[in-house]
Amino acid sequence: MRVGFIGLGVMGRPMAERLVKAGNGLAINRVKAASQYLVELGATSLDTPRAVAQQSDVIIIMVPDTPDVETVLFGPSGVAEGLAHGKLVIDMSSISPVATKQFAERIEQLGCAYLDAPVSGGEIGARNGTLSIMVGGTRAAFERALPLFEAMGKNITLVGGVGDGQTAKVANQIIVGLNIEAVAEALIFAERAGADPARVREALMGGFASSRVLEVHGERMINKTFDPGFRIRLHRKDLSLAVDAAKALELTLPNTAATHQLMDTALAEGDGEKDHSALIRTVQGLSAA
Amino acid sequence: MRVGFIGLGVMGRPMAERLVKAGNGLAINRVKAASQYLVELGATSLDTPRAVAQQSDVIIIMVPDTPDVETVLFGPSGVAEGLAHGKLVIDMSSISPVATKQFAERIEQLGCAYLDAPVSGGEIGARNGTLSIMVGGTRAAFERALPLFEAMGKNITLVGGVGDGQTAKVANQIIVGLNIEAVAEALIFAERAGADPARVREALMGGFASSRVLEVHGERMINKTFDPGFRIRLHRKDLSLAVDAAKALELTLPNTAATHQLMDTALAEGDGEKDHSALIRTVQGLSAA
Repeated sequence: MRVGFIGLGVMGRPMAERLVKAGNGLAINRVKAASQYLVELGATSLDTPRAVAQQSDVIIIMVPDTPDVETVLFGPSGVAEGLAHGKLVIDMSSISPVATKQFAERIEQLGCAYLDAPVSGGEIGARNGTLSIMVGGTRAAFERALPLFEAMGKNITLVGGVGDGQTAKVANQIIVGLNIEAVAEALIFAERAGADPARVREALMGGFASSRVLEVHGERMINKTFDPGFRIRLHRKDLSLAVDAAKALELTLPNTAATHQLMDTALAEGDGEKDHSALIRTVQGLSAA
Repeated sequence: MRVGFIGLGVMGRPMAERLVKAGNGLAINRVKAASQYLVELGATSLDTPRAVAQQSDVIIIMVPDTPDVETVLFGPSGVAEGLAHGKLVIDMSSISPVATKQFAERIEQLGCAYLDAPVSGGEIGARNGTLSIMVGGTRAAFERALPLFEAMGKNITLVGGVGDGQTAKVANQIIVGLNIEAVAEALIFAERAGADPARVREALMGGFASSRVLEVHGERMINKTFDPGFRIRLHRKDLSLAVDAAKALELTLPNTAATHQLMDTALAEGDGEKDHSALIRTVQGLSAA
């Protein structure tokens, strides 16, 4: 397939690499030093998203936030200017479900298909092709994209119509964020009550408290190893999406709001670039030493 | 082993049954109709905790709350009056870690050993002998009790000294309660955003959001089947232990406190006897329909 890939950051680079290694043609945008190796693997470097869209059947976007997707799609020399009838746009960024529905409508008006397909699993999942991919859109578009998704991920779900992939991703980030905060409170409690948090965590691993977060992030909290992983700054962005969408939907989500605020505090304290398991430092900071 | 078992409720009955079926002598206290079958299995029914303690080498207690343990141990005709040098008291109730240390000290002054050994896994775990057992006390006492624990549970951990079993149980209930609340917020969000919560849950099962709570309680929330399981009323008691101990330890645990309050609301709304997954009803109630 002729694939265009826009957004060669920490996640985008290994995803694009897996696509080209799977035998797809790859057009990329404004190559920097870090992604020069993709050109050596056979990718074509072009100057604008418009040019990438012109040379591709499927255009994948992987950028940080909602305004970035809007700029890539509809800004000057953007993807929309290079689209022709029958092309497929796949936004794999994690952005607003509400804005996604608007973007999809504008792309569909150009005679093209749109999928939102945010991922979970971090840089390691991107490298190993084990990302979870949560997809919103038509089944026809999903099936067309499936070979590409299978090159990048393992747990690939068509959740529903356009926007539902982003909704699932927000739900994912609510659960992961609140589970991290829960493990932090429990381990802080255990330590202050005089128990060994590492042994408490072990005792809890087999029961109803067990979770990927207790396993992975709980261990980081105990070892105090907070290299990302997934940065608090980015998780706070995802909880901002949750809080903003909840407001638009007139929903009260008390622990999401509280955990979002704790992440605000983490950023204010300079922990934004640490792994999200470092949220335990912020929760600890709420109590006197 | 000659075992005394005090507290033949929903959990205690099947636990005592497994002990007698494993070949232990069993003395029980004030048998009611529901536990008459234990006498038919060979248990001896006695009139007071004191008499149970006199006839047993190991006395196990499984009652609802901290004051109940205190009454069983130190009340009139209590266990303490029937103890003699070298006996072992095991409290498998879920109670205050702070009070536990005081109870243990008083029992040890009588020349006896004390273990706190609260459990997780519910009535089904008690029936099947698959409880998680979190133990605090000396290694010698733990090893003496191990054959009994192995008749009742699978995941058996000596967490640390006296009280650390209860601390681990509180930590467990913090994580389970907050994970339930997190899944509730995520599924409510998904539904209100227009997605199918069942498909969102499936999309999340393989990734970092995965947990026993997403698996078990998430499914109950989607099917709206709230037969206990584990009652909100009891989980609220456990979070009260957490909130009270946190206050004594001068700890701020924001989401534990908020979730405890939500469980208060659930009780006020008449949901106390429902499974704790029914907390989703309370979270839904915070938003206009």
